[in-house]
Amino acid sequence: MAAASLLRSLTRHARGASAYHHHHQTWAPFSTAAAAGARDEARKGFPGLGPTVKGEKARVVVLGTGWAGSRLLKDLDTSGYDVVCVAPRNHMVFTPLLASTCVGTLEFRSVAEPVARIQPAVSKSPGSFFLLARCTGVNPDAHTIDCETVTDGEKDTLGPTKFKVAYDKLVFACGAEALTFGIRGVTEHAIFLREVHHAQEIRRRLLLNLMLSDVPGLSEEEKRRILHCVVVGGGPTGVEFSGELSDFIMRDVKQRYSHVKDYIHVTLIEANEILSSFDVRLRQYATNQLIKSGVRLVQGIVKDVQPNKLILDNGEEVPYGLLVWSTGVGPSPFVKSLPFPKSPCGRIGVDEWLRVPSVRDVYAIGDCSGFLESTGKDVLPALAQVAERQGKYLASLLNRAMKAGGGHANSQAEADPGPPFVYKHLGSMATVGRYKALVDLRQSKVG
Amino acid sequence: MAAASLLRSLTRHARGASAYHHHHQTWAPFSTAAAAGARDEARKGFPGLGPTVKGEKARVVVLGTGWAGSRLLKDLDTSGYDVVCVAPRNHMVFTPLLASTCVGTLEFRSVAEPVARIQPAVSKSPGSFFLLARCTGVNPDAHTIDCETVTDGEKDTLGPTKFKVAYDKLVFACGAEALTFGIRGVTEHAIFLREVHHAQEIRRRLLLNLMLSDVPGLSEEEKRRILHCVVVGGGPTGVEFSGELSDFIMRDVKQRYSHVKDYIHVTLIEANEILSSFDVRLRQYATNQLIKSGVRLVQGIVKDVQPNKLILDNGEEVPYGLLVWSTGVGPSPFVKSLPFPKSPCGRIGVDEWLRVPSVRDVYAIGDCSGFLESTGKDVLPALAQVAERQGKYLASLLNRAMKAGGGHANSQAEADPGPPFVYKHLGSMATVGRYKALVDLRQSKVG
Repeated sequence: MAAASLLRSLTRHARGASAYHHHHQTWAPFSTAAAAGARDEARKGFPGLGPTVKGEKARVVVLGTGWAGSRLLKDLDTSGYDVVCVAPRNHMVFTPLLASTCVGTLEFRSVAEPVARIQPAVSKSPGSFFLLARCTGVNPDAHTIDCETVTDGEKDTLGPTKFKVAYDKLVFACGAEALTFGIRGVTEHAIFLREVHHAQEIRRRLLLNLMLSDVPGLSEEEKRRILHCVVVGGGPTGVEFSGELSDFIMRDVKQRYSHVKDYIHVTLIEANEILSSFDVRLRQYATNQLIKSGVRLVQGIVKDVQPNKLILDNGEEVPYGLLVWSTGVGPSPFVKSLPFPKSPCGRIGVDEWLRVPSVRDVYAIGDCSGFLESTGKDVLPALAQVAERQGKYLASLLNRAMKAGGGHANSQAEADPGPPFVYKHLGSMATVGRYKALVDLRQSKVG
Repeated sequence: MAAASLLRSLTRHARGASAYHHHHQTWAPFSTAAAAGARDEARKGFPGLGPTVKGEKARVVVLGTGWAGSRLLKDLDTSGYDVVCVAPRNHMVFTPLLASTCVGTLEFRSVAEPVARIQPAVSKSPGSFFLLARCTGVNPDAHTIDCETVTDGEKDTLGPTKFKVAYDKLVFACGAEALTFGIRGVTEHAIFLREVHHAQEIRRRLLLNLMLSDVPGLSEEEKRRILHCVVVGGGPTGVEFSGELSDFIMRDVKQRYSHVKDYIHVTLIEANEILSSFDVRLRQYATNQLIKSGVRLVQGIVKDVQPNKLILDNGEEVPYGLLVWSTGVGPSPFVKSLPFPKSPCGRIGVDEWLRVPSVRDVYAIGDCSGFLESTGKDVLPALAQVAERQGKYLASLLNRAMKAGGGHANSQAEADPGPPFVYKHLGSMATVGRYKALVDLRQSKVG
């Protein structure tokens, strides 16, 4: 115990010995003999978390910390389940507010919630964990997954470490990836807007470019270039970010960076129409608001992205200093690699109870999952409200199974799964600059 | 004007044209013909900021945004001076609180103040600037400095750009560098604690290691290693950081990361005695407080730093997961390269008015400067209170010169510089964990 060892040091020193104790007395845990023993022991057993046994809590393994995974984690009944969350990110991102953090309207910490706060068991309960790792494969027959730790390029910590985790129930909630449509240079030069580190990168780049624009001797052309913010994609994220940017320019830049106020501009490029999922009158309102706040709207298709300019399909060159890419999402390579039947659009195929039907005890929720064609239902849109309600639904399904004695793998006692998941669209919302937003309450969407 | 162009787009679109205007009408500023012209024009003249002329404001160029430079910037009279600050960092860091940001006691933004807020003229006055650049050389005869922009590895912004800045008065306030005593591996593997990004790196590493320690299959030895925080250097920074860390462990880790509470430890390594500049009774108090809060004090000399362990001079190996290095500061390579006489310890030598005596209109303040041996005064310690008061003193000296008509370069009208700079030590302070601090009010220190 830390408290005990602390107490030991305290009493040792209180006895009047030298204030410095010599380290060779206290380094025992690091001694190489003891270490080698511990290592061997770890190797001998299951290299990871072994299967649970009857009488122990069953283990739900959740892959992902987005809207779906976080809601599931929050609602799982930890009196009967151990939860193990495996994800490359230790927090949930409140994505609708991410755009606001890029220009300082909100702090980054305001839009990120640590997993350990969403489900405290992962850092307190002896059998529950959050593991900063990527799932690299699944073995549905053995009820195990393969994982590898993620260190985001930090050296000197722990090298990439592989391990296995046995599951009683496995839930894919690993989301989707930004679409680039195979356009060259997007991944290298554009910034997406899906994670907190993306928003931090945008903010850093924006401020850096504002400062660099003061470099003496810079040509007018170059000054305009580095202060040109281009957003590709006119969906809610692209529109909201453009609105935030032009607000920032009109309110903050004019006051605080008055040297550059004539040079900074925002352009929003969209191949079709902005906010195409919204009602036509709302679209028109949004368009007017954006233009009013100084955003240039350009209808065009991006063909190629180069370090300081992008090329449109009509050959036109658009120089930029900051390029944000937001053209929707699609299945990740990991989802594509999974040995399960897929829904239309290539997501993990699920039945109406969100189960992966070909195997036992495997579920998929959120953007990574879609109804199989055989269900006769359309694939739901990649929206927070879909993912969040699937997480809630699945938690109650799993909690019910556990209470009926069907929490463990391959359980015979699996109860009636209850009613299938039904999605009811509650409407869409998008902000367009300061204190202005669109709300579309039509109950369309597939469902 | 942004407002005007915005108004133009508004009226254009209000007239009922398509909501999308085609970009070729608005990209004129980027057209290559206009660009080439602008570039040539920039090249023809002075490649940077040219000399001021009589009648214009004189230009004070300040290199650095630390305690000395920031206080000088704040106090300079911008009714008579244009100020140009050249530094690789656009903010002042309130260094005494930096240690508290590593563990979340304080937010990073609470300890950093943007230069534009310290001296608003740099972003508002037409002739004043903050330039994110490094000074690479000085030509005292021509009254110019050479600069190169700094982009911190951001690609796709502006390549490294060189320019010159002519000065009427030049002030070196460029600080010192962390000392490593030539010990191998320090720069590669240890983190210093002098900048906000250092604190961010420490925080990121600490949280990453806490998460990684839960990886299943990790040996006991490896778990202890990655949770072992080692601080080298027992000066105020090392002691304060150790105190913050053990506070964090005792308060937060036990609650929020209860899986690891028996494995995480802090060790403070110092070759001599901790807080050697403080009174012996205060040192004893600090030692007791640190031990009480769980910090292991080790007296030893680091010989070699390797990726996951350091070697002491007695051959002992100390495995670590986080290594923070804080063993004082010394002159930077830039300061060493300057063609000016040096003080003892290799700082830029100044006379009692903080002037570099061999040349005209050049001054040095803060950690980068020291009294020349010929002044008969000792070099002052590298402390915030020395730097801050030198900045204040020099601002009033320069403001007085300007008012006497001696603001411009090589001015004949240079007034009596007034009384020399005299340093009075007001005492030293160091916190040792929560709500506890040492205050040494003895008026020693050189002065």
